[in-house]
Amino acid sequence: MAREQTLGVFLDELASEAPTPGGGGAAAISGAMGAALVSMVANLTVGKPKYAEVEEQVKAVLAKSEALRAKLTDAIADDVKAFDAVMGAYGLPKGEDDAAKAARTAKIQAALKEATDVPLEAARLCREAIELSAEIAEIGNLNVISDAGVAVQSAYAGLMSAALNVRVNAKSIKDRDFAEARLAELETLIGEATALNAKTYELVKSKLA
Amino acid sequence: MAREQTLGVFLDELASEAPTPGGGGAAAISGAMGAALVSMVANLTVGKPKYAEVEEQVKAVLAKSEALRAKLTDAIADDVKAFDAVMGAYGLPKGEDDAAKAARTAKIQAALKEATDVPLEAARLCREAIELSAEIAEIGNLNVISDAGVAVQSAYAGLMSAALNVRVNAKSIKDRDFAEARLAELETLIGEATALNAKTYELVKSKLA
Repeated sequence: MAREQTLGVFLDELASEAPTPGGGGAAAISGAMGAALVSMVANLTVGKPKYAEVEEQVKAVLAKSEALRAKLTDAIADDVKAFDAVMGAYGLPKGEDDAAKAARTAKIQAALKEATDVPLEAARLCREAIELSAEIAEIGNLNVISDAGVAVQSAYAGLMSAALNVRVNAKSIKDRDFAEARLAELETLIGEATALNAKTYELVKSKLA
Repeated sequence: MAREQTLGVFLDELASEAPTPGGGGAAAISGAMGAALVSMVANLTVGKPKYAEVEEQVKAVLAKSEALRAKLTDAIADDVKAFDAVMGAYGLPKGEDDAAKAARTAKIQAALKEATDVPLEAARLCREAIELSAEIAEIGNLNVISDAGVAVQSAYAGLMSAALNVRVNAKSIKDRDFAEARLAELETLIGEATALNAKTYELVKSKLA
């Protein structure tokens, strides 16, 4: 579905006052562009005699980056669905008695948990894209190595963007053990990704010098 | 032209061994998403009584972010054109005599200069998107402030990505004064953008806490 939309309409809708697509969709596209650029470098490395020694490793990277690209493209729609569920739950009638109020609250809380887990999963996928960018930056075709640097920047922006959506939803979750566990995982993801992004970007810069 | 392409086909072509779209196209889209998300936050701030005091400032941001989004969307095609010109020049017959060789070299050098200036202009546009993200993060509707954080991350990834394309082309330019002037401007852009990105992201995080 997201695949069928034109870039122009996607950007128009992103800019509009419609709540989706928003930051979550942009995060998923950044991640998908990162995975796609890993694939591009891999595709331009496979079959080249100069890189015969790493051929099998590059093919393995390519298989992973293509699977990741498909998942991150799907994540655009997952974000819309999770957002709509939260809005739908908040929009339920507030209820007259305690039982009805409690049922509405339970639905809101369940939707918020889902809307926290969906961007957290997107962040995990972006971390994988960063790892693959780092790997292809080491072994990929030097003629297109700048694309490995763009891959890591895109995937990192995707992760940092998804992270904000985790935070915004986790904040309103009453089950603090649930929320704190997600926020702790997020901090670990960000710490590792920040270091690997900087290292990979510098590696690419040094190969361009 | 780029506007008419579907997201799915764009990502397929990005991942393929076709040289364009590549990192330059991804950089432009990251920048365009950044500008679009500034517009989204602005659109959801304008007209709200709570934000009446900043209404005129937000409208001014919106006008700038929409103009920027159009330019960054066009930059996708500019990147393809500049790349094709370089490839076309390298593909010219090498020539038999010195005059023919010199003519080919001149065409390559002119194409490389253009292919350095095009991503440098994209980087400048991304810097503007970062500045607008910083402004809207200060004054925009708190309910969608996370989108200002995604905006700055996207625009920053666009700038850092475009920077690699400046470097890769500047490297082969024989007119070192030309190349060094572009690289010096790039370093200034990156320094300012890195600080403003970090500051804006932290501001958004603090507003979400």
